[in-house]
Amino acid sequence: MAKGKQQLSGAGLRGQTAGATALCTVGKAGTGLTYRGYDIRDLAEQVSFEEVAYLLLKGELPTAEALDAYRVRLAGLRDLPAALREVLERIPASAHPMDVMRTGCSFLGTLETERDFSQQEAVADRLLAIFPSIITYWYRFSHDGQRIDCTTQAESLGEHFLTCLHGKRPDPLHATVMNVSLILYAEHEFNASTFTARVCASTLSDMHSCITGAIGSLRGPLHGGANEAAMEMLERWETADQAERELLARLERKEKIMGFGHAIYREFDPRNSVIKDWAKRLADNVGDTTLYAVAERVEAVMQREKRLFANADFYHAPAYHFMGIPTKLFTPLFVMARTSGWAAHVMEQRDNNRIIRPSADYIGPELRPVPPVEARG
Amino acid sequence: MAKGKQQLSGAGLRGQTAGATALCTVGKAGTGLTYRGYDIRDLAEQVSFEEVAYLLLKGELPTAEALDAYRVRLAGLRDLPAALREVLERIPASAHPMDVMRTGCSFLGTLETERDFSQQEAVADRLLAIFPSIITYWYRFSHDGQRIDCTTQAESLGEHFLTCLHGKRPDPLHATVMNVSLILYAEHEFNASTFTARVCASTLSDMHSCITGAIGSLRGPLHGGANEAAMEMLERWETADQAERELLARLERKEKIMGFGHAIYREFDPRNSVIKDWAKRLADNVGDTTLYAVAERVEAVMQREKRLFANADFYHAPAYHFMGIPTKLFTPLFVMARTSGWAAHVMEQRDNNRIIRPSADYIGPELRPVPPVEARG
Repeated sequence: MAKGKQQLSGAGLRGQTAGATALCTVGKAGTGLTYRGYDIRDLAEQVSFEEVAYLLLKGELPTAEALDAYRVRLAGLRDLPAALREVLERIPASAHPMDVMRTGCSFLGTLETERDFSQQEAVADRLLAIFPSIITYWYRFSHDGQRIDCTTQAESLGEHFLTCLHGKRPDPLHATVMNVSLILYAEHEFNASTFTARVCASTLSDMHSCITGAIGSLRGPLHGGANEAAMEMLERWETADQAERELLARLERKEKIMGFGHAIYREFDPRNSVIKDWAKRLADNVGDTTLYAVAERVEAVMQREKRLFANADFYHAPAYHFMGIPTKLFTPLFVMARTSGWAAHVMEQRDNNRIIRPSADYIGPELRPVPPVEARG
Repeated sequence: MAKGKQQLSGAGLRGQTAGATALCTVGKAGTGLTYRGYDIRDLAEQVSFEEVAYLLLKGELPTAEALDAYRVRLAGLRDLPAALREVLERIPASAHPMDVMRTGCSFLGTLETERDFSQQEAVADRLLAIFPSIITYWYRFSHDGQRIDCTTQAESLGEHFLTCLHGKRPDPLHATVMNVSLILYAEHEFNASTFTARVCASTLSDMHSCITGAIGSLRGPLHGGANEAAMEMLERWETADQAERELLARLERKEKIMGFGHAIYREFDPRNSVIKDWAKRLADNVGDTTLYAVAERVEAVMQREKRLFANADFYHAPAYHFMGIPTKLFTPLFVMARTSGWAAHVMEQRDNNRIIRPSADYIGPELRPVPPVEARG
């Protein structure tokens, strides 16, 4: 081979433009993270996730009337078809929960196929509404042997998820934090999973294929899953001092600490302070004296030692934990939120499409004759 | 919005390098289509698909001994787990066959999860071996009500597929043509489905996610499916003269004719003459006096009127048809072949990875305050 491992021209397409979007800015000078021009911090403070999903999928924030109708519509799309329940019951408890999301989405596509693009908003709404049911039905059946009813009266998607998971209406504070969390994770421009959805969309494939592919990419440890990794680390430590000691040892060993830094942001992640505030309120609410203090110390040490800031994933770990959400469901929650952004990107790609087909640098053998089988080896 | 629809900077990443590969050249000056340096025409003439899969996945053509072992290994990986059969039985006959492939792959990932990358070759072999079983089991169950046995004694993957589909050993000529066809479709550099697999792999996600995503992209009508579209057109015509007349009318109406031209090749598709020769032999073999003649006339008219050459897909349509393969299974056959290339690209991406995360041009609204709900509309 001519070049070998250092060969990385164009690798990762970093800084290369792969298309245009009206959905999001990430780290744009002076504006930070915006969805269709609205600052993420304003949205997290003032609106519901359903309004954000509407904004991303339909172009503008809904009027009061449109919002009411949209909530009713989504609530009516929560139930699982019988065949999908039967499929979920055949997925073992040991399966990776992201494989459950990916398979649930793909199988639903065999039952409710997007026949043409006039159905794209309907399919997006259905996926948004049904993902909490898919993951909690599988989780409760495989882990507790319970067949849950996925037609809750919950007013929001976050509340629906918590209700299905715990079998009761959540504390209003928890419903509020879920709402904020879903908003923070809803959209993030051309990240790897969204770009996967757009590459798939560029072949004019169907919505289920695009979202299924995106879930597969989000599953990777370099993309989704940082909040799970952060949780697994944080819960090992019982005091802030112990956390500092052991974190310094990890840094000494050059271990990667999940939940810090970002591929695009250089100074800070605008989502961090939002979820950090809510994590604090949840800690006070549940009377926690350990986990939040450990997390704060880890944040301070990482800043002091590595000049790395906590990203959106870091305080999501304690926040989800305080709400009683099993760590293995953290990344599926990311899917529930990001489906709004993914589907909006699919529609945008379709609206002004060219098939995404880059080039490659060839580093393999020169043209050679095929040796007969007896001459090989 | 600042720019609108003409905004297409970087669109499709055409001509932009997204990484390096040692697997394939497409249309490189003087070499045409090569797999690891071997000309596709030499491979199609001299080796089996199993040798090509081995070449792509393991780096070199196998010795006689390695090839024997590989054939035995693949043959032992054909059977469907009971839970997967039960899932396939729940997919309706009306489903898109590519959704069946996508779901079968995804569900298998919940049962046989790739725990770490040391399992990557094992997972790739399993997918190669099982895909013919997945699609034929679903097809025969949903269309004929038959639960077929997927443990055939067939010597090759192509023969296994035909045996499962038709319930009997195929004509040796058909097994030979399937072998050639699978070789021709095995690999094609950074096309959209392979690029999907590499984007997914770049997050360090698992093999099932990468292949599931690739299937979703191949499903799109701008990518896979051209041979199905060609077949649907060709079978409407009963004589070459009728074909010419109606084709000219279609061209007059500016309709797109599938199976012609190519995004990368400019002069000819090196796979076309290979499959065309075999399509002719199949036509003679079955005593066809219509379909092949219609196809040849269409090719001549397209060359004369539009200076467009037939690509690999075009003569695949009559070739598959002569072997009794239902048109809706043409694209799943593409999956069976291309899984070898996809998996090889996933391994190559992992071997020298950087997460694929391009940029976007922002064309949306400027920063704006969130209006209260009563002020919207």
